[in-house]
Amino acid sequence: MHSVFIDEIDAQTYAEHVSRAGSTIIIPAGATEQHGPHMPLGVDAMLSRSIAGAVAEKTGALVAPALCYGYKSQPRSGGGNHRIGTTSLGGNSLSQMVDDVVASFIAQGFENVVILNGHFENYQFIYEGLDNAVARSRAAGSSARAVLLSYWDFVDEDTLSKVFPDGFLGWDIEHGGILETSLMLLLHPTLVNMDRVIDHPPAQLTTYDVFPEDPSRTPPSGCLSSAKGATAERGELLFTTVTTQVADALKSELLLGNITLEVN
Amino acid sequence: MHSVFIDEIDAQTYAEHVSRAGSTIIIPAGATEQHGPHMPLGVDAMLSRSIAGAVAEKTGALVAPALCYGYKSQPRSGGGNHRIGTTSLGGNSLSQMVDDVVASFIAQGFENVVILNGHFENYQFIYEGLDNAVARSRAAGSSARAVLLSYWDFVDEDTLSKVFPDGFLGWDIEHGGILETSLMLLLHPTLVNMDRVIDHPPAQLTTYDVFPEDPSRTPPSGCLSSAKGATAERGELLFTTVTTQVADALKSELLLGNITLEVN
Amino acid sequence: MHSVFIDEIDAQTYAEHVSRAGSTIIIPAGATEQHGPHMPLGVDAMLSRSIAGAVAEKTGALVAPALCYGYKSQPRSGGGNHRIGTTSLGGNSLSQMVDDVVASFIAQGFENVVILNGHFENYQFIYEGLDNAVARSRAAGSSARAVLLSYWDFVDEDTLSKVFPDGFLGWDIEHGGILETSLMLLLHPTLVNMDRVIDHPPAQLTTYDVFPEDPSRTPPSGCLSSAKGATAERGELLFTTVTTQVADALKSELLLGNITLEVN
Amino acid sequence: MHSVFIDEIDAQTYAEHVSRAGSTIIIPAGATEQHGPHMPLGVDAMLSRSIAGAVAEKTGALVAPALCYGYKSQPRSGGGNHRIGTTSLGGNSLSQMVDDVVASFIAQGFENVVILNGHFENYQFIYEGLDNAVARSRAAGSSARAVLLSYWDFVDEDTLSKVFPDGFLGWDIEHGGILETSLMLLLHPTLVNMDRVIDHPPAQLTTYDVFPEDPSRTPPSGCLSSAKGATAERGELLFTTVTTQVADALKSELLLGNITLEVN
Amino acid sequence: MHSVFIDEIDAQTYAEHVSRAGSTIIIPAGATEQHGPHMPLGVDAMLSRSIAGAVAEKTGALVAPALCYGYKSQPRSGGGNHRIGTTSLGGNSLSQMVDDVVASFIAQGFENVVILNGHFENYQFIYEGLDNAVARSRAAGSSARAVLLSYWDFVDEDTLSKVFPDGFLGWDIEHGGILETSLMLLLHPTLVNMDRVIDHPPAQLTTYDVFPEDPSRTPPSGCLSSAKGATAERGELLFTTVTTQVADALKSELLLGNITLEVN
Amino acid sequence: MHSVFIDEIDAQTYAEHVSRAGSTIIIPAGATEQHGPHMPLGVDAMLSRSIAGAVAEKTGALVAPALCYGYKSQPRSGGGNHRIGTTSLGGNSLSQMVDDVVASFIAQGFENVVILNGHFENYQFIYEGLDNAVARSRAAGSSARAVLLSYWDFVDEDTLSKVFPDGFLGWDIEHGGILETSLMLLLHPTLVNMDRVIDHPPAQLTTYDVFPEDPSRTPPSGCLSSAKGATAERGELLFTTVTTQVADALKSELLLGNITLEVN
Repeated sequence: MHSVFIDEIDAQTYAEHVSRAGSTIIIPAGATEQHGPHMPLGVDAMLSRSIAGAVAEKTGALVAPALCYGYKSQPRSGGGNHRIGTTSLGGNSLSQMVDDVVASFIAQGFENVVILNGHFENYQFIYEGLDNAVARSRAAGSSARAVLLSYWDFVDEDTLSKVFPDGFLGWDIEHGGILETSLMLLLHPTLVNMDRVIDHPPAQLTTYDVFPEDPSRTPPSGCLSSAKGATAERGELLFTTVTTQVADALKSELLLGNITLEVN
Repeated sequence: MHSVFIDEIDAQTYAEHVSRAGSTIIIPAGATEQHGPHMPLGVDAMLSRSIAGAVAEKTGALVAPALCYGYKSQPRSGGGNHRIGTTSLGGNSLSQMVDDVVASFIAQGFENVVILNGHFENYQFIYEGLDNAVARSRAAGSSARAVLLSYWDFVDEDTLSKVFPDGFLGWDIEHGGILETSLMLLLHPTLVNMDRVIDHPPAQLTTYDVFPEDPSRTPPSGCLSSAKGATAERGELLFTTVTTQVADALKSELLLGNITLEVN
Repeated sequence: MHSVFIDEIDAQTYAEHVSRAGSTIIIPAGATEQHGPHMPLGVDAMLSRSIAGAVAEKTGALVAPALCYGYKSQPRSGGGNHRIGTTSLGGNSLSQMVDDVVASFIAQGFENVVILNGHFENYQFIYEGLDNAVARSRAAGSSARAVLLSYWDFVDEDTLSKVFPDGFLGWDIEHGGILETSLMLLLHPTLVNMDRVIDHPPAQLTTYDVFPEDPSRTPPSGCLSSAKGATAERGELLFTTVTTQVADALKSELLLGNITLEVN
Repeated sequence: MHSVFIDEIDAQTYAEHVSRAGSTIIIPAGATEQHGPHMPLGVDAMLSRSIAGAVAEKTGALVAPALCYGYKSQPRSGGGNHRIGTTSLGGNSLSQMVDDVVASFIAQGFENVVILNGHFENYQFIYEGLDNAVARSRAAGSSARAVLLSYWDFVDEDTLSKVFPDGFLGWDIEHGGILETSLMLLLHPTLVNMDRVIDHPPAQLTTYDVFPEDPSRTPPSGCLSSAKGATAERGELLFTTVTTQVADALKSELLLGNITLEVN
Repeated sequence: MHSVFIDEIDAQTYAEHVSRAGSTIIIPAGATEQHGPHMPLGVDAMLSRSIAGAVAEKTGALVAPALCYGYKSQPRSGGGNHRIGTTSLGGNSLSQMVDDVVASFIAQGFENVVILNGHFENYQFIYEGLDNAVARSRAAGSSARAVLLSYWDFVDEDTLSKVFPDGFLGWDIEHGGILETSLMLLLHPTLVNMDRVIDHPPAQLTTYDVFPEDPSRTPPSGCLSSAKGATAERGELLFTTVTTQVADALKSELLLGNITLEVN
Repeated sequence: MHSVFIDEIDAQTYAEHVSRAGSTIIIPAGATEQHGPHMPLGVDAMLSRSIAGAVAEKTGALVAPALCYGYKSQPRSGGGNHRIGTTSLGGNSLSQMVDDVVASFIAQGFENVVILNGHFENYQFIYEGLDNAVARSRAAGSSARAVLLSYWDFVDEDTLSKVFPDGFLGWDIEHGGILETSLMLLLHPTLVNMDRVIDHPPAQLTTYDVFPEDPSRTPPSGCLSSAKGATAERGELLFTTVTTQVADALKSELLLGNITLEVN
């Protein structure tokens, strides 16, 4: 059985990959978070894992188990941490976990570590853990490199205009919106129920955060914009663009070979 | 679609469950660790997740995303942290992650939190995180309760004698052995390759640990005992015993109702 | 002497303020970071402190000593942490410091705590510390509230079009650019040397981060866009807009009175 | 404009300094703490910053932004942490901040780091952070050196007898007393109001600490001795002695050159 | 005076030992924990210290001051942390203390560090601290080695059958039972009162842990099995076996010389 | 057998004490540190434990196992952390250990916790741990109180003049000097060898600290002043004064009863 996911391959197959020039591990990062009434809690990890898988196929990389718990959902990008369905890590817990996992992969011999983020609020805390792990590893003689990215940052203008024909308002309010729903319709259609989409205008958010959170400021749907325009076709457009662009970026950054892996 | 796995259900369905008396979340805990040449790296999370799923069906509980990275593999119970394929968290990172996740679930309203462990070395660090989260939550007025268990501790004498007809030598050396391989043959047969099992006598381990680890002291297979006797039938025997016993224990401990969940 | 800065007022005057309804402390947050050849290292703390002072005058709040060291400068928003002149805190150090300081101010009786951020990369780590301090304080019976903001998020469209007549490209590349330089020309003109501005096109940055940082990818100037169009007039426009908008937001959020403080 | 304060100089000027033999950064450390009814909350940072500035002029060093928040005020040396006006860091937060900042300056190339302390209770926690940063940096190949001092430890017997003609009772009870008030009268006279000095005998303190603090044991003034004898002349005597002695000590310890810096 | 305990020898004598080939320090680890009505709270540290002393005499090692506070007592191996008389450290506190102490001994020149554990629940947290200290020291060029052991794991089958003629039920329920009581009768007889032993059948424990602890599930005696069969003779048998076996293991592992130390 | 040391008494006897009004636990704090060629490494813990024992007899308190590892020895008060024989904890490790132990004793019901310090450098880090534990316990409803003291601060002027007839130069340089040696001659005479005392003038120390430490600045003896004048008689004078004064202070602070404890 062929697989790029390391939880599905054995240690010998894994060892062969690690020993190759340009060996690369991609760690998907998600969250356990409400995504409106029409999508399941695991959207962020599912999408980052699927995208990582496709990128790995294109680049000869392997994919590690996803980080399934993420940093606190924020009202301005995820609806808020107070919402039912949202289970979060503190910032330092997330950074420490990333640091340990990345240092572990570097110690095993990977030349490149990529973290492919699928939960907006994770980015800075992953940055901290990744920066520390790479700095420490290199101080100890390793020449490992790393890349951190959020997959939506690879959607180009052309795709944007096709997926958001009425205008694109920013990734921060895409929580539970057209981007994620279209991708889920493509990749995990049985887990989406478009009948339950609540159609409301984009959330009008403050330009600042208040503590404690004020549940009345974000839409009751838990989404920051409507998923009504989501389709599997738009999902495919997004998926193709993102996986191609990410793969191209990684190839040029990390000198990846094109390797086919066969699992026992 | 019906599911007990919260990553597959939406926030409203989840909210209905949480609001019921006896609401319970089961968190599977695994590791990313070599399991010999015949099994994949994700065995511990896969097994704890599958067992948690079956227990949840029997008890009306829900299952959270598995903790996929675990504490350092040790030579006396997992072959060692130096082995290729093994990616680990430090003890405090694991405890902190457990603390955050458990406190988060209690804050959302679950009356009971269960951690179902599938990686030997995790136990004490999960204990620490769980103890701290429950103590702090109760000091703040919650009446939440929690249970921590390793699934193999629910295999009874009768099952042991059937699965290990030549005598049972202890769970610590079952890493990559008959227990795990039989369960994988039952639950994820395409990920096991019995042709690659290396048949060797049980590892003769010291009664102490040495630092740094000495790779020459554990079998090159990465397993501490031979998986040769593993069969799907034995897997079924183990699975039935464990899931029944765990479900019974949880029912009597946590006053769980028998609830059927339907996902949109 | 009248002052809104608590380092300049005595404990009795301070105590009188704290005892009033709606008492508010504003904590400016900056960094010690290179800002190109034409501006000093202290820009971020100077600007956030000056803006906080003006907002305090408008709202009856007090201003705490600025946090002068910030999170690691990143290539995509500050030029990078490798640059000479840049001294940074780790993420957890910053979060812990914020947590301690905020909890301290709440314990003394302030009803509202505002953190006014002037260094792009600080935001998430301040969020974490502030969220933890407020949550813990409220669990202990306090009814304190808090606001976190970055001052540039209060520049409105009208001002943007005047300050950036050739089009605005995003706050992330405004490091050492027109925004900061104009404000410095207004507030600290002796510390700016416009003759040393290096005029270059906006930095073309990747949509991801690489570790370790690659110095060749950001302009040698240390700025991400040119400050050539900066003038004190534009600084005044920005300063007026920002301080008015922030003051209005705080007044409506935090029920601030309009209080005049006289220092001994 | 000439300045020894790095927040007022640009990165190129800073870089030139760092590249010189014997390059030295002085980090002033203060606190935000009540200093009686006659002085402002920022005394400790103001004084350590001013003294550091004068020492830098004499030695060719640069001065970093002051650490404006310090360790918890203690009844036996600062009146206590319960007093209004006192905002503190926990011990580990302070040590971590010092560690990060010092490691950062060493990484940038400074050969010497000096922390000039102006808040009694800070000393040991700064010691810990400084010791760790230097040890780690040297283990990684740096030859950086560091000095930690509290400025009052450089007042010699002759000055003591002139400033305290009625006898000197120890630095611990000088909080808000003659030393600090005289220096403030010299350096920041508009921030001192001698009419508000409360004249009381030196505090009679226990030889131990009690927890929680007992507010009734320290003078209501917040000072541990009377500032009545404070004058700008005594401030000048103290300032001259301290800055000369500290500069002499640093010169002999750290092989500093005498360098004049011109800012753009 | 001759002593193997470093708290009883002077620095010069200590230095001579450290400079020898194979120099070894043994750190006993105990706890402060109830041990039933018939034994004192210090049993774990006393026994590990005495055993360490005898092993040191046989191997030329030195013995460090015991770690007198241990990880939380657990119901399934120590009766529980809720019991009066039990004072515990959190997991990370214990790991950090071990890390600091071990790194300190390695830095002083010891070639070997042994931690001899006498409190069941300590093991994994000591493992973590020891692993980190050794890994970091070796990364910095040291060639130090370490061993971690619990002394009861060195009782062989022959001794077991003599000490437990009615059958041995596992070390986990030996808390306050025949093993510890027999050793105390041998080594500290005045601190044992056999008249107060409560004779009850072995505790029937669950195969899982519940949080918070349920005091009704463990015997009111605080012991998990009866100490009735304890005698000084059995203590001697255990002591001889354990100290001989541990010494033999250390000699073969660590190339210890047989050294006699004389204290001034 | 009667004992005030909790490691020597059983849980029932301990429980009786804890249940009494004014129940008090004294925790001695020491270090493992060189004390010159004439005294053993354990001086600090031995002395604080003996003094605590005598104070407990006078006040009805109990004594906990000593903290045997302390904060880093510093050149200006202990000769330095680089010296052979000195094994230290980091600041945060010490604070955390103190926090855990104190919180544990308060949770068990002690009304008063006293930490009796015998190692100069420990004080501030114990202060931090103790302050945090008491604050948290009281926030949770406890009315526990605590005292922190270093025993030498209870030597009065009269005793000083008798023990140091040639003049007293400060407790900081008493490391390995007359104070400690006299007390050891009284309490542990077989562990002192006066023939090995090196007679040298008091160390001339800088008024600041340098990093890394400079071994050449402190006397090769490891002592900061000569122990030549030490006698058991002076030890008795010191011991009587200190134990009486500390007992008196505790009685008046903590409302201790005079209780006699009999151990089974």
